[in-house]
Amino acid sequence: MNYSFKNDYSETCHPRLLDALRKLEAEQIGGYGEDPHSEEARQLIRNRIGSPEAGVFFVSGGTQANLLVIASFLRPHESVICADTGHINVHEAGAIEATGHKIHGVSSPDGKLKVQDIEAVLKEHTNVPHVVKPRLVYVSNSTEVGTVYRKEELEELSRFCRKQGLYLFLDGARLGNALVAEANKNRTGAGPLKEYSSISEGCGLELSDLPRLCDAFTIGGTKNGALFGEAIVLSHPGVAQEFPFHLKQRGALLAKGWVLGVQFRELFRDDLYFELARHANRSALRIAKVLQEQGIPFLTEPETNQIFPILPEPVIQQLLEQYEFYRWKKIDEEHTAVRFVTSWATPEGVVDEFIQLFLSIRTD
Amino acid sequence: MNYSFKNDYSETCHPRLLDALRKLEAEQIGGYGEDPHSEEARQLIRNRIGSPEAGVFFVSGGTQANLLVIASFLRPHESVICADTGHINVHEAGAIEATGHKIHGVSSPDGKLKVQDIEAVLKEHTNVPHVVKPRLVYVSNSTEVGTVYRKEELEELSRFCRKQGLYLFLDGARLGNALVAEANKNRTGAGPLKEYSSISEGCGLELSDLPRLCDAFTIGGTKNGALFGEAIVLSHPGVAQEFPFHLKQRGALLAKGWVLGVQFRELFRDDLYFELARHANRSALRIAKVLQEQGIPFLTEPETNQIFPILPEPVIQQLLEQYEFYRWKKIDEEHTAVRFVTSWATPEGVVDEFIQLFLSIRTD
Amino acid sequence: MNYSFKNDYSETCHPRLLDALRKLEAEQIGGYGEDPHSEEARQLIRNRIGSPEAGVFFVSGGTQANLLVIASFLRPHESVICADTGHINVHEAGAIEATGHKIHGVSSPDGKLKVQDIEAVLKEHTNVPHVVKPRLVYVSNSTEVGTVYRKEELEELSRFCRKQGLYLFLDGARLGNALVAEANKNRTGAGPLKEYSSISEGCGLELSDLPRLCDAFTIGGTKNGALFGEAIVLSHPGVAQEFPFHLKQRGALLAKGWVLGVQFRELFRDDLYFELARHANRSALRIAKVLQEQGIPFLTEPETNQIFPILPEPVIQQLLEQYEFYRWKKIDEEHTAVRFVTSWATPEGVVDEFIQLFLSIRTD
Amino acid sequence: MNYSFKNDYSETCHPRLLDALRKLEAEQIGGYGEDPHSEEARQLIRNRIGSPEAGVFFVSGGTQANLLVIASFLRPHESVICADTGHINVHEAGAIEATGHKIHGVSSPDGKLKVQDIEAVLKEHTNVPHVVKPRLVYVSNSTEVGTVYRKEELEELSRFCRKQGLYLFLDGARLGNALVAEANKNRTGAGPLKEYSSISEGCGLELSDLPRLCDAFTIGGTKNGALFGEAIVLSHPGVAQEFPFHLKQRGALLAKGWVLGVQFRELFRDDLYFELARHANRSALRIAKVLQEQGIPFLTEPETNQIFPILPEPVIQQLLEQYEFYRWKKIDEEHTAVRFVTSWATPEGVVDEFIQLFLSIRTD
Repeated sequence: MNYSFKNDYSETCHPRLLDALRKLEAEQIGGYGEDPHSEEARQLIRNRIGSPEAGVFFVSGGTQANLLVIASFLRPHESVICADTGHINVHEAGAIEATGHKIHGVSSPDGKLKVQDIEAVLKEHTNVPHVVKPRLVYVSNSTEVGTVYRKEELEELSRFCRKQGLYLFLDGARLGNALVAEANKNRTGAGPLKEYSSISEGCGLELSDLPRLCDAFTIGGTKNGALFGEAIVLSHPGVAQEFPFHLKQRGALLAKGWVLGVQFRELFRDDLYFELARHANRSALRIAKVLQEQGIPFLTEPETNQIFPILPEPVIQQLLEQYEFYRWKKIDEEHTAVRFVTSWATPEGVVDEFIQLFLSIRTD
Repeated sequence: MNYSFKNDYSETCHPRLLDALRKLEAEQIGGYGEDPHSEEARQLIRNRIGSPEAGVFFVSGGTQANLLVIASFLRPHESVICADTGHINVHEAGAIEATGHKIHGVSSPDGKLKVQDIEAVLKEHTNVPHVVKPRLVYVSNSTEVGTVYRKEELEELSRFCRKQGLYLFLDGARLGNALVAEANKNRTGAGPLKEYSSISEGCGLELSDLPRLCDAFTIGGTKNGALFGEAIVLSHPGVAQEFPFHLKQRGALLAKGWVLGVQFRELFRDDLYFELARHANRSALRIAKVLQEQGIPFLTEPETNQIFPILPEPVIQQLLEQYEFYRWKKIDEEHTAVRFVTSWATPEGVVDEFIQLFLSIRTD
Repeated sequence: MNYSFKNDYSETCHPRLLDALRKLEAEQIGGYGEDPHSEEARQLIRNRIGSPEAGVFFVSGGTQANLLVIASFLRPHESVICADTGHINVHEAGAIEATGHKIHGVSSPDGKLKVQDIEAVLKEHTNVPHVVKPRLVYVSNSTEVGTVYRKEELEELSRFCRKQGLYLFLDGARLGNALVAEANKNRTGAGPLKEYSSISEGCGLELSDLPRLCDAFTIGGTKNGALFGEAIVLSHPGVAQEFPFHLKQRGALLAKGWVLGVQFRELFRDDLYFELARHANRSALRIAKVLQEQGIPFLTEPETNQIFPILPEPVIQQLLEQYEFYRWKKIDEEHTAVRFVTSWATPEGVVDEFIQLFLSIRTD
Repeated sequence: MNYSFKNDYSETCHPRLLDALRKLEAEQIGGYGEDPHSEEARQLIRNRIGSPEAGVFFVSGGTQANLLVIASFLRPHESVICADTGHINVHEAGAIEATGHKIHGVSSPDGKLKVQDIEAVLKEHTNVPHVVKPRLVYVSNSTEVGTVYRKEELEELSRFCRKQGLYLFLDGARLGNALVAEANKNRTGAGPLKEYSSISEGCGLELSDLPRLCDAFTIGGTKNGALFGEAIVLSHPGVAQEFPFHLKQRGALLAKGWVLGVQFRELFRDDLYFELARHANRSALRIAKVLQEQGIPFLTEPETNQIFPILPEPVIQQLLEQYEFYRWKKIDEEHTAVRFVTSWATPEGVVDEFIQLFLSIRTD
């Protein structure tokens, strides 16, 4: 079968996680997340984010996490603002609306929400009470089109939301990829990214910034080496306190909650979570660098493990003979933006071979 | 107090309706719409629409009617397509989402939905099951910006919806105004309207076309001479049969249902419903004609009792000294589209005086 | 047609209300309850209840009022406790559940909720978070079986709810009948009622007690002389402030809100609301007194305008030849509890004739 | 730590399941259940139930399965009938009501629903449209109090539901325990069970009966040896076709769906699913037999892996010194029914020691 660059959840999980599950075999363990393994995972995360009071909860998937967070924050007449590319707006089968809330999707070519976007929505919703009341801002980081928020961008959003009485919720399905992105290393966020040769953490956005900036955020496991699972972090104490009811009501409270807890314990016991994300980013950006050197334009700036080169049809055809990936958006009659996604498990050799093939196609 | 052109629900109701209510004083009448007066109203409507099998129900308002119809047709994962100006999309405080359904609002400068708009939404929702399933098309006639669907436009929408398995629901909060519009008299729907001198019904869209073209539609009373009330007409027998449960569950089943039934009986006993709409249209179009003669552009084609001239700020200021009306949309630094709404009760003399004032301002 | 004792919403409305509507004919009036007539009605009610800060809102029916109040108070995981006879539990087609909330109906032969009933529900719901969180207590006064809460009963409930962090909501669809009941005149609430000869207000429960005792209550118009309409009174400032959004979202905000406002203005301009209720109670209790004198037992204590005598089948048959009323509950092979409801409009002569017929049947 | 008889989800999972997950490490696997492993699992189940057309879906937990099934079958005004002990009625934090549907919980000491219970609910809901429309019957097998439906009981329910237009949904969170119960071996269902010495399958209820008898049922994994997961089987083709939308919308569609699929493939590749259930039943019934021989009464007939002996307080106290288990229901001042749950992983030696301790206490 051809190697797939379709997504970052095609491989089982990092071996340490299955090992950790195997080691539990001799135990009887408490149910519903009330066990020492889950508690250890929660503590590791609280330490890492520097927020000993934060509510930390583990659930099985991203759509579940999103609907839980949003439904627990909002009253029936309150609505959500997000980029029109936002996962909740297009790829969750109406999960948020099914909990009763309208979503305002605002156009955003780079997948990021700006203060002026939110302002525009607020301005359109002054004819009270005939309109909904926008109350929660949803951002994804990294975004659905692979871009990342700079620290100052998120700080600006956060300040604005606080001032306007809006909740800020960050969907971190690919949070690892965002936090280790070059964009968050010693940069001011202005201008395009030129160099991807070395990926390391810098003085940009840190995990520990999030509890201060957001009312809620998630830490994605499924797309970063876990078998499955997302951690929900709630800075808002009132919502956190009642959250277990919501977990149960929405069918998200696993009887064997430690299946999730143990995985997050392994990911955050050391730097594993970030190492896996770094590997994924590095793999994609190695490809991106070569393509950029060959003059290939991109739909969005390549910053993380999802990249969107705009390729000529014949090139796409040849690549599809040996690799699987998605066509993302038709640009013109002869060009289409495609999506390559690398993961924590992408072998270096595969990246080498892909680059070789690409160069051989181009030089033909 | 200044005369108001703000809307068409500022005056009580046509005197015949209150008289009819007064005449019931001696009776004891059955509850929940199960009374002879309501039954007579339902029969009059069924006769008029030429659909003896249609379900006819009376409710107290338009938002209520819309949420009832939509929630009774759709399954949880199904969504609604409408123009972004659609009442359900912007002015119902999230009523449809509160019943669990997403709305796709598509951009439409003239407030009308076209087949290609629907096609575009369908095309964006093929990634099953990650997306909602568009299932119902909502149109308003006349629209929120005063325009009307030509018969052939509605027929084209209807054919497309049938072919695609989509329900078609027409919100007739201002249905009277649409049906008596010049646009529906001996015209093909192409090109701008030039003449508003005589308003009469023609061979265009008729009330009796609607049961054939739509799965559901409403006949608005509140904005056309009733104290309050909308009639819901359901062509879909299965939905009609269960509809009383929905009425009760959503708080729409009035104990004294005849308060609504009697009003619709009076409106449809003869041509009153259409006469009132004709009067409202004629009043607005008398104003529109003068403004057009003076070279005033309009945001949308003036076709019914809502018109949207684009006026210079100084003119708006002077008019506001003697009349009330809404600013609708800022066009540029010096011009704003305003909305004038006339009603079944607008005195001819008021229209005369308004025209005189306008001409005096312009000639200054 | 036979005279009907089926319910108290069979007659149009008190003539003063239609007169008041007729008088508005010359005006243009502001929409959505933002008009001087509605404001005057709100002020009259605020004065009468002695709570200048209370939120007062008018809606078209009781089910609508109930679902609005409950949905605006509760978070998704919170539930409602009521008597199993509670209107919301049995006769609103699942309106409350449709807003997402569970109802705990507790058995109550007299239709009243007691502190121990609530305690029992709370005790069953400690297995957090696997259970819902009971959060709102719903009582009807008068109840669905015609009984009334004594002031001290309601005070005890209120104290308990406050202590437990429960909201208390009183459904006053027949509040007038409750407040003018003999039970609320100089009595301690203990023991059965013996005398119904004179009905007058006393030192019992007063309208002005309710804002203090309840977080929300309604004042029913539909069943006490209005064409239609219920007033919702909210003591909770936070809920009151956001309530207009809920009104709009649930389809309860009438464009011509003054249709409701004017009616409540008339009902509360003087003592009309209470006079109508007194008349209704007096009519029923005249019948009850005769039946009790004839040894007829009752399903519940006759206290208001709904009485439930337990009659032998042959008596029921003979009465049904000249009157309409509902069989309520089969007691044994030979006896059935029936329901007689009188209204603000029941003619004294009708009561006289009914009593005569009854006595003639019994003495046969 | 003391050995726990608290539940059957305290141990990780059968080693074969983790082995199977480990074996996937080299693969790239398709997302959202569209992979060969999940497909193989679906085929194994379809073969086992003898229904090649059935819809089979894997989800992460029982509450999720229940809310998904019920919400996908019902229209807004339709409700659910179940025993008052039903999991959906008491232990799912209002999950069903959160999807908008009322539950009618009917009293049932043995946790089983009978035709007359359903009939009684139907009879109370004829006052259309003021009441909800009961539409779906929910049964658990084995029940929440450990009892099992005999084949003829389920057939009778099924026939009645079909006749009345009611859907029948069987919650099989502990379906394995029900199907291998002695009660389903060569018995007619009448009378108490006397012998538990040999547990084997017989001519009673079979897995392959369920598609014929029910519109939907689940096969529980979490409580029978899986890490987590329930299989949902849908006999109703229309609901099955649209079900993936519901899965996605409710947050139940795992990106790595094969985590569930692989587990069910292992459980149904051979007889493992039933062997694990047999072991759990046998362990509990060994204890039950000894207790019955010692004259201990039971709250419900011990038939599966959950047993509810009524023990004197001093005995409970002594047992609690060495074992963990729940007090279930206080019977009188001196006696409480407790719950012992055994699992697929309960060691025989633990059962032996427990029995010894019990006998030593009793003989003291």
